[in-house]
Amino acid sequence: MIVLFTDFGWQDPYVGQLKAVLAEAAPGVAVIDLLHAVPDFNAHAGAHLLAALVQAFPAGSVFLCVVDPGVGSPRQALVVAADGRWFVGPDNGLISVVAARAQEARYWRIDWRPEQLSASFHGRDLFAPIAAGIAMGPFPDDKLSSVAAPEVSFDPTDLARIVYLDHYGNAWTGIRGVLLGEVDAIELKGQHLGRRSAFHEAAKGEAFWYVNSVGLVEVAVNRGNAAAQLGLKVGDPVRLTSPQGGLH
Amino acid sequence: MIVLFTDFGWQDPYVGQLKAVLAEAAPGVAVIDLLHAVPDFNAHAGAHLLAALVQAFPAGSVFLCVVDPGVGSPRQALVVAADGRWFVGPDNGLISVVAARAQEARYWRIDWRPEQLSASFHGRDLFAPIAAGIAMGPFPDDKLSSVAAPEVSFDPTDLARIVYLDHYGNAWTGIRGVLLGEVDAIELKGQHLGRRSAFHEAAKGEAFWYVNSVGLVEVAVNRGNAAAQLGLKVGDPVRLTSPQGGLH
Amino acid sequence: MIVLFTDFGWQDPYVGQLKAVLAEAAPGVAVIDLLHAVPDFNAHAGAHLLAALVQAFPAGSVFLCVVDPGVGSPRQALVVAADGRWFVGPDNGLISVVAARAQEARYWRIDWRPEQLSASFHGRDLFAPIAAGIAMGPFPDDKLSSVAAPEVSFDPTDLARIVYLDHYGNAWTGIRGVLLGEVDAIELKGQHLGRRSAFHEAAKGEAFWYVNSVGLVEVAVNRGNAAAQLGLKVGDPVRLTSPQGGLH
Repeated sequence: MIVLFTDFGWQDPYVGQLKAVLAEAAPGVAVIDLLHAVPDFNAHAGAHLLAALVQAFPAGSVFLCVVDPGVGSPRQALVVAADGRWFVGPDNGLISVVAARAQEARYWRIDWRPEQLSASFHGRDLFAPIAAGIAMGPFPDDKLSSVAAPEVSFDPTDLARIVYLDHYGNAWTGIRGVLLGEVDAIELKGQHLGRRSAFHEAAKGEAFWYVNSVGLVEVAVNRGNAAAQLGLKVGDPVRLTSPQGGLH
Repeated sequence: MIVLFTDFGWQDPYVGQLKAVLAEAAPGVAVIDLLHAVPDFNAHAGAHLLAALVQAFPAGSVFLCVVDPGVGSPRQALVVAADGRWFVGPDNGLISVVAARAQEARYWRIDWRPEQLSASFHGRDLFAPIAAGIAMGPFPDDKLSSVAAPEVSFDPTDLARIVYLDHYGNAWTGIRGVLLGEVDAIELKGQHLGRRSAFHEAAKGEAFWYVNSVGLVEVAVNRGNAAAQLGLKVGDPVRLTSPQGGLH
Repeated sequence: MIVLFTDFGWQDPYVGQLKAVLAEAAPGVAVIDLLHAVPDFNAHAGAHLLAALVQAFPAGSVFLCVVDPGVGSPRQALVVAADGRWFVGPDNGLISVVAARAQEARYWRIDWRPEQLSASFHGRDLFAPIAAGIAMGPFPDDKLSSVAAPEVSFDPTDLARIVYLDHYGNAWTGIRGVLLGEVDAIELKGQHLGRRSAFHEAAKGEAFWYVNSVGLVEVAVNRGNAAAQLGLKVGDPVRLTSPQGGLH
């Protein structure tokens, strides 16, 4: 299974061109569009989203990850093996959080370059052929060099900021719910929000937070739009409130 | 063929997670994205859209239908067989119109629960595995209980309201054209609109109605945006005008 | 490989209905969504986009092209073979630029009509079955008549206008970079923009142009939104500036 994780957007012809390469180079392999709406150019938010989203995918999945504002610059190209899953993309931190949190991670630099390499679309020209090669096997050793670590790494601890706004207006944070323990309130844009276990437990129009289906703290409004109601945007900071009322 | 019908939107990571489950549980089965833009949380509009859209699909198609604002509440989970097609989704009325209009319908409650059931994403955790099981066969009797009827049913008669706005600005109603007989005008937002058989029969910029490609009365503007021009939104009522000038 | 190129948009149920037809009529054939955001009703911009986008696709690819504001009118339906690739769509100019630029092109009128032909959705009812037939083979001679030329043809020379705005705000023109020679500046909305080879060569927030990954002149802003910053829309004219300062 090849899984796409990009900021290409759905409406543009970028995803289709990339899939045409995969269809030729990895015929019969399932291709899953996981997310093409990583906040534009935002490898940092993307790194935390990716780390949360991959957990449900089977070993052997190949993630083609492209949030690449430095395309065409000397930034390196990377392959990562982390807990049995594969990741291919730019060495700009995007893959670093999922790798740092894994029990086991290995890294390779992509040395190979295609005959025709555009200056602006390495997703299609460089990363897709490598991802297809890994999915089809054998592992393309001849195109890669083992390295000890990526060149760019983000802090892998939880990110207490909004990292994604979905189309309902729900706001995902980079905080994993499993680590929260006794925390029962969060502060966001000056408002304290209580915890609910599911949407129907909140009154219609009430803002709350819960641990969402990929394990992240998410701010939502029951049958409403939290982003609009609270004026949220990606990057807004979130504070956790302990039961004693203190703030972390 | 598994057909997806949801309000998940395209940009979010929900459809991809659901497809990853299907790719694992029903490998090789074609998955068709019919609609992910059912008006948010609006099972009523969705029920009328679904009933219109399924008619062209072959017997044996499995529709995975998720418009589920009550997810995590005690609402039941449902499987319906209607005129040879299968439907899997929440028991909140969403599947009730297509079932009530069928020549023959049978109903099952989903008793099975997965080991890991999130509070907010039954599409991925509960409905997708059941839909995959039905598509692959044999029919998962052991996970279902036959029931006489759904718990929630909407009135299956035609809905004289806007149920969908497409990206061109065309407005779909819940009224089936085949039932209209001699009606030749409709009233919408205080305006009377005439009937045309196709777009090119209207003047450029003229608002009109016609029976669209899934058999519903649709309000449109030739080479224009009816929703913007007439100020339309989902839920707006529509009135039918008889040839004698009376209103239904 | 069947490649979809339309103005249907992603959110609406049109693409899914069309894919359901393809899944039935061409099972196992890969279907690639290249673009569903051709500017609405704009066959002229679409023709130039199509000509640029097809170059990377392998011989034998079948392009299902639908930008069809005249659907239901007497406009003809067309099949084109151009340099080994196939094109199916309305005879309204949409396929004419790629055909005129090909080394070799042949044309057929589609005579066949399905039993059920809607007045507004020939993509699903007429073009998809023909595209599926060509992809599966043998070539459906019995449904086509060879013709010498399309009824509607656009000027195939480069189009010095904005033809597409992507979701980052980058503006594609219809000018092929390979033809530019010594040109090093363009004028757009009264501003002169310099050439860069890639995004990272521009300062953050700087507007520039470059030859994009499909070979077209594109106006962009590094880590910014050119469409918003410069107030661009599809159709805006572009002027090329020679090194001597003269304007073409």
